[in-house]
Amino acid sequence: MFVLDSRLQQDTLPIGDFPLCRLLLSNDCNYPWFILVPRRPDITEVFELQPDDQLQLWKETTALSVLLKDLYKADKLNVAALGNVVSQLHMHVIARRRDDAAWPSPVWGRHPATPYTEQQLAAVRAQLRQVLTTDFTFEEPQ
Amino acid sequence: MFVLDSRLQQDTLPIGDFPLCRLLLSNDCNYPWFILVPRRPDITEVFELQPDDQLQLWKETTALSVLLKDLYKADKLNVAALGNVVSQLHMHVIARRRDDAAWPSPVWGRHPATPYTEQQLAAVRAQLRQVLTTDFTFEEPQ
Repeated sequence: MFVLDSRLQQDTLPIGDFPLCRLLLSNDCNYPWFILVPRRPDITEVFELQPDDQLQLWKETTALSVLLKDLYKADKLNVAALGNVVSQLHMHVIARRRDDAAWPSPVWGRHPATPYTEQQLAAVRAQLRQVLTTDFTFEEPQ
Repeated sequence: MFVLDSRLQQDTLPIGDFPLCRLLLSNDCNYPWFILVPRRPDITEVFELQPDDQLQLWKETTALSVLLKDLYKADKLNVAALGNVVSQLHMHVIARRRDDAAWPSPVWGRHPATPYTEQQLAAVRAQLRQVLTTDFTFEEPQ
């Protein structure tokens, strides 16, 4: 059974589900920083997924990239599966801009996270509802 | 026409070619750090590749990951397309170990690069020749 890693749960806000992946928002309003987690148990590396799931992960990563590029007028997407700290497979998809806090460095370990306010988070959810219109189920806020 | 970005050329050593990507070795012996560059002109993001090329990039990324995991007894693979500095699309595939210089941080910007000696580089090439036996053409050293 799939259980979200406790560190991911702590550091992110749940958005909803693609067919394969849970979509999380990193709780750091310095960047539009999203994380895809395949809902499969005990997976650390992309190549440990079944071939169909690998393909689906890439599809969801690409679809999310296209959407974020446009939504946030990103200068560059950063797409990465690292997992040195949290080994549960998760794919970072980050919309980077030349005027963001860490540019041109990678975001990891660069600045302390600045949590979203309730209002900011509601705005992000509302924006996402405009563009995530197919193959996606939003999690209803608790 | 595909031309390798000058910064990538400067910071890496050429290994050879998969069907789609040139395989480069980052000239930093702190880590087994490889870079795949699709031989397509004017591409910055994965989603700008034709769908067949996207699929091939993922295949080559996965094949290389499996091979490096085993060859270097890696604890974790780091797979990332960042490109904030060099915009030409390139995929990092880095074999990370818990005893490496940057663990558990990402490698970028962590330590100055330590270039390979001729002898070290020859050893890496020899190891790769043992395992890159299909769909790969080695570049002959100049």
